[in-house]
Amino acid sequence: MTVKERVRIGGRSARIQSAVHDAVRKLGALSTRNQITVPQIAAEAGVTPSTIYRRWGDLSALLADVAVARLRPIADPDDTGAVETDLRAFIEQYAEEMSSPVGQALMRDVLSALKEGLPSACAGFTCDHLTTLNARAKARGETPFDIDEVIDHVVAPIIYRALFSEQIPTPDYCNRLIDRIYLPARKRRTAV
Amino acid sequence: MTVKERVRIGGRSARIQSAVHDAVRKLGALSTRNQITVPQIAAEAGVTPSTIYRRWGDLSALLADVAVARLRPIADPDDTGAVETDLRAFIEQYAEEMSSPVGQALMRDVLSALKEGLPSACAGFTCDHLTTLNARAKARGETPFDIDEVIDHVVAPIIYRALFSEQIPTPDYCNRLIDRIYLPARKRRTAV
Repeated sequence: MTVKERVRIGGRSARIQSAVHDAVRKLGALSTRNQITVPQIAAEAGVTPSTIYRRWGDLSALLADVAVARLRPIADPDDTGAVETDLRAFIEQYAEEMSSPVGQALMRDVLSALKEGLPSACAGFTCDHLTTLNARAKARGETPFDIDEVIDHVVAPIIYRALFSEQIPTPDYCNRLIDRIYLPARKRRTAV
Repeated sequence: MTVKERVRIGGRSARIQSAVHDAVRKLGALSTRNQITVPQIAAEAGVTPSTIYRRWGDLSALLADVAVARLRPIADPDDTGAVETDLRAFIEQYAEEMSSPVGQALMRDVLSALKEGLPSACAGFTCDHLTTLNARAKARGETPFDIDEVIDHVVAPIIYRALFSEQIPTPDYCNRLIDRIYLPARKRRTAV
């Protein structure tokens, strides 16, 4: 009986979470984030505002929670058959998504909440993808790349541009960043 | 008479701005940003809440305005006598400031407001400093660095770490980023 009750509570809790997340996504598509209020979200989700305050604390924490859920990847990056083209394909798609108006808004929601751990969870999604690419490279007998180097010199400039600059990171720009990772190694191989 | 009135209105407008900015800074030092309200700021500044709404639109726009004012540099970077050490000194101080709790909160305020132009204004402050260092380099007969390269490969990874990572950019880390700019050029010079 106790177990059954726990399961039932878990189920209701998950349903509330799902209804509130859906309401934020729906209202977010209709209006700008600064216009959304907790009572609106509650009405759309069919819960009381106090349910939202009790569970998430405040609006910015709820928006950040929804943003992290939306930034969480739903599939592994494409397998193109070789590590360098895998990386180029992943980065091109990543740059396009993160510099889109939706990607920018999600990053801002994550950063605005002042909740520790959420921004690094998002950075962790990117790191997980790069780790997947490297595991594939090793399985194929290829040399893996240095993940920290790709974070610092490919991912970071793309995110800096997406957040702080009016220049959108183009596919050409992304490829030039990756060239800096691969060209020196190629030159060393040619020299040997 | 018309001119005098304009000056008087300008003066009052500047005094309101200054009082409201001071109030935000004072309240911000006492409580976390998510706890500050417009009525509190208005009471502290001695203005009505409607004055704040009329002038700034909403709280996030006001916080972003104050953040940009605080991020605006008040002095040129130190002159150490040579461009490479100028760059190392400037970047070390920049990394320390931007990864401090205050620096992180100011960046988040700027990004949260969804006001176009504010994030790029902040990126512009950094770019202005780098331009100053390069102008000094040219005046000394030194080779200037490539500003875009420093933005992408030194500034961007520092800001990415400050915003998204739990690893604070240390002085060692900053110096390794600058090594990547200077060491290849040094190797080319040695080879010639």
